Amino acid sequence: MRKSIINKSTIFKAVFTIIVFLIGSIFNVQAEVQASDPLPSWTDGKLKMEIVRFVTRVTTKGSPDFVPSEQRIATFDQDGTLWSEQPVVQGMFLMYKLELMAAEDPSIRTKQPFKAAFEHDAKYLHTEGMPAILKLFSATHSGMSQEQFEMEVEEFFAKTKYPKLDVPIGQVVYQPMIELLDFLRANNFKTYICSGGGIDFMRVLSARLYGIPPEQVIGSSMKKELQLVDGKWVLLRTGELDSFNDKEVKPVNIDIHLGTRPLLAMGNVRSGGDIGMLRYSQGRKGPSLQLLVNHDDEKREFAYAEGDNASLSAAKENGWLVVSIKNDWKSVFKFSDR
Amino acid sequence: MRKSIINKSTIFKAVFTIIVFLIGSIFNVQAEVQASDPLPSWTDGKLKMEIVRFVTRVTTKGSPDFVPSEQRIATFDQDGTLWSEQPVVQGMFLMYKLELMAAEDPSIRTKQPFKAAFEHDAKYLHTEGMPAILKLFSATHSGMSQEQFEMEVEEFFAKTKYPKLDVPIGQVVYQPMIELLDFLRANNFKTYICSGGGIDFMRVLSARLYGIPPEQVIGSSMKKELQLVDGKWVLLRTGELDSFNDKEVKPVNIDIHLGTRPLLAMGNVRSGGDIGMLRYSQGRKGPSLQLLVNHDDEKREFAYAEGDNASLSAAKENGWLVVSIKNDWKSVFKFSDR
Repeated sequence: MRKSIINKSTIFKAVFTIIVFLIGSIFNVQAEVQASDPLPSWTDGKLKMEIVRFVTRVTTKGSPDFVPSEQRIATFDQDGTLWSEQPVVQGMFLMYKLELMAAEDPSIRTKQPFKAAFEHDAKYLHTEGMPAILKLFSATHSGMSQEQFEMEVEEFFAKTKYPKLDVPIGQVVYQPMIELLDFLRANNFKTYICSGGGIDFMRVLSARLYGIPPEQVIGSSMKKELQLVDGKWVLLRTGELDSFNDKEVKPVNIDIHLGTRPLLAMGNVRSGGDIGMLRYSQGRKGPSLQLLVNHDDEKREFAYAEGDNASLSAAKENGWLVVSIKNDWKSVFKFSDR
Repeated sequence: MRKSIINKSTIFKAVFTIIVFLIGSIFNVQAEVQASDPLPSWTDGKLKMEIVRFVTRVTTKGSPDFVPSEQRIATFDQDGTLWSEQPVVQGMFLMYKLELMAAEDPSIRTKQPFKAAFEHDAKYLHTEGMPAILKLFSATHSGMSQEQFEMEVEEFFAKTKYPKLDVPIGQVVYQPMIELLDFLRANNFKTYICSGGGIDFMRVLSARLYGIPPEQVIGSSMKKELQLVDGKWVLLRTGELDSFNDKEVKPVNIDIHLGTRPLLAMGNVRSGGDIGMLRYSQGRKGPSLQLLVNHDDEKREFAYAEGDNASLSAAKENGWLVVSIKNDWKSVFKFSDR
């Protein structure tokens, strides 16, 4: 009899344990469903669903649109797509360097094109155009070794705040974009920056800001030369432009770096600078996705448009997804859920 | 009493099990020691030991020379370092394309510089130099879309045998180098090709020959342009040279692709083409390793040297490791253990 009682008691305990386990599982499952929203800062709706569906489609084995992981390449513009561009951060670095130069030699304040930069004389710079701009970049971004330049960017980054938003520069990164990058990488995408910004400027920051390693950054570049300086072989940054990574040059540089068309490409509305990259991605054999950020949120970020509306027209014509900051992003920055 | 006997029997069984387990372990350990030679095609000796020790040094946590995995970048020349270069495979592709062109239009056989190529007129090509060579490359490597070019390389590769060795081209890869690449990757190195060969030519083959994905290939390139052809945006290969990835240009292109100096760089003796890359690697802050393959094995591969001995002189001066194919490689190719 006693044995039998023990058995009953054991069975009871086992059943109880199973029930507790099952209840626990149910709660866990619910918790998981809630935690499994990969894009919590994106507004639930059609756009978010299209992104998630695309990623599911190309990563589900057996799906007719399945793409092997080695072809899951995603390229992102930086300024205005991954972080704010009012003002462009590298322009701030240029001014920071000019101030350092003027502290050594105040006479540059009276010489063009530096004078125009110090006085925010947009009219002069617009009239003189690319040669004047290049002169400013050359004066502030060249003449040093590659390693020296990286140190200067580090110093600038540690010292400087972003105007208007009044936060350290690193905080003007868009929180929804961090989530999108993480979501893509969790699905074995390789994420790249492809931006008009300087390749070396961006590389100093890309890993800590976006989890993108330096070798996955594509950008504008200056010519460099291997030279022996103080007994050491260094790459000297010459003042000459090598490649301005904008518009139809973006696909060319993506090809140099990757040799393949991106499965997903994302840029933003401002100057038409990303149309070429999105067209190139869309020409991929098989599925692909193109997105454009539209800056329409004066309250939480900035609102600006293109004079000729080229990017939005191209989006409409080609079926690219347009991300409205106002409507599609629940929060814009991590520092504020305004 | 019975209880006690059972216990002794249990203890006996346990001890026996432990002994069997230990003996098994000893055999396993021996098997592991034998299986754990990461470079079986390399002759045991000083050179092999130096390579293994370097990798151990930079990958052992707590070692003063420890290098975090994101900085473990290794760059390899291709022709003469990863596979044979007598003749250079891309030169064979050039001739293959010229033959196809001559089948369409036999008159090119009588026009320079094509005539010189068909007649192996080295004197003409040497006298006319780079402009003539570029004309040959332009005629055979440009005028088509990027995708079309890749298909042509595939066809060539499937059809052609390597002369002198009489095997499919894919088999002239050096077996010891495959082992070295695998060994480095097993230690979280990222392996790159950095070669004078055409970037797009190499990318078609790099994954299947060396396990190196296309985006980890750096090479010479032609200018390309995004153009609308038959309603599709494609990169058209123009006939103009963009970058000849040789000598002091190799560090410049490594910088464009990676933004950092390689921890390990390896080239070969032939034209001094890898000296710049090895110098650049050696200028890295912290540990680094440089190697040069010396082709001194007429019997199993080919024997050739540099007129000015520049590579071997630089190796001596800078303490780079020289790999003698004759002495340091037990076998050269997979197809033959001659």
